[in-house]
Amino acid sequence: MPVITLDMAALTREKKAQLVQTLTRNASEITGIPPEKFIVLINELERDNIGVGGELLSDLMK
Amino acid sequence: MPVITLDMAALTREKKAQLVQTLTRNASEITGIPPEKFIVLINELERDNIGVGGELLSDLMK
Amino acid sequence: MPVITLDMAALTREKKAQLVQTLTRNASEITGIPPEKFIVLINELERDNIGVGGELLSDLMK
Amino acid sequence: MPVITLDMAALTREKKAQLVQTLTRNASEITGIPPEKFIVLINELERDNIGVGGELLSDLMK
Amino acid sequence: MPVITLDMAALTREKKAQLVQTLTRNASEITGIPPEKFIVLINELERDNIGVGGELLSDLMK
Amino acid sequence: MPVITLDMAALTREKKAQLVQTLTRNASEITGIPPEKFIVLINELERDNIGVGGELLSDLMK
Repeated sequence: MPVITLDMAALTREKKAQLVQTLTRNASEITGIPPEKFIVLINELERDNIGVGGELLSDLMK
Repeated sequence: MPVITLDMAALTREKKAQLVQTLTRNASEITGIPPEKFIVLINELERDNIGVGGELLSDLMK
Repeated sequence: MPVITLDMAALTREKKAQLVQTLTRNASEITGIPPEKFIVLINELERDNIGVGGELLSDLMK
Repeated sequence: MPVITLDMAALTREKKAQLVQTLTRNASEITGIPPEKFIVLINELERDNIGVGGELLSDLMK
Repeated sequence: MPVITLDMAALTREKKAQLVQTLTRNASEITGIPPEKFIVLINELERDNIGVGGELLSDLMK
Repeated sequence: MPVITLDMAALTREKKAQLVQTLTRNASEITGIPPEKFIVLINELERDNIGVGGELLSDLMK
């Protein structure tokens, strides 16, 4: 029943599959909660929708 | 002022309207807080963005 | 695998049990997803930690 | 390291830049935490995905 | 109906009142949405519950 | 600037430090984003505040 949420810029499908697999396995090993109890939610945000230090990420990466 | 957030796979507009109406009415009845105070946020996620038990939902549903 | 999150002021244990039962049943009926797939997270906040219209809820309820 | 998340209807890029700049500067001044430590996440939702008082925002704005 | 959520370390009641007032006013001015529509949720976290760069904030501040 | 949020039952400080270290390192390796950009937020919830399949976790674990 633990929920792991990632808020970040867009990712390929392959990286999402790797993140889900690896983070679930890690968190399961550390907490002792079986992996099938974990839910991972990946919230992909446009670079116009992430601010760092008061500036949009899309401006910082120009 | 309570906020109910749903993170789940895509839904039709009709189901979203039903969820908003029903969850607001029931949460209002149980808590005694008037329905007009409730906000519902529906965060629809692609099946590539949901992980269950270490696997993407899009792979589990193949 | 849907996740329902409630952010609101403190509740009794009985009301939390009722909310979890009722919202899960409702959301399951509307979406067709079996109830055992639903996770509900109740995030109770102090009235000093909720703002409505620019004022703390603890001030509004004085 | 503070995270400010906004859940709201769609905005222009210019308004998002203004929100990120202004909210970061003000939250930094009030808390004394340097602006470069702040992350802002803007989660834009369709009006079909926001419920107010049990109704979809898209219906309320008709 | 916009929701502004802050996740950060503990704050005094006075700073929370200032954050709620200032961020609501700023966001209202920029978006044109009336201030009474805004909800602010302040999620205070222990320094043992925040990680930056792979380390707990409580270790980084020693 | 990615944010990883964990919502789960209470953990020891040692397990929180391990989760922050391991999830940050792995998410950094998979995404290619440097570890110092990652924030982890651990939201510990009482077992009365987590529902699974319509029942409180505190009832399920009796």
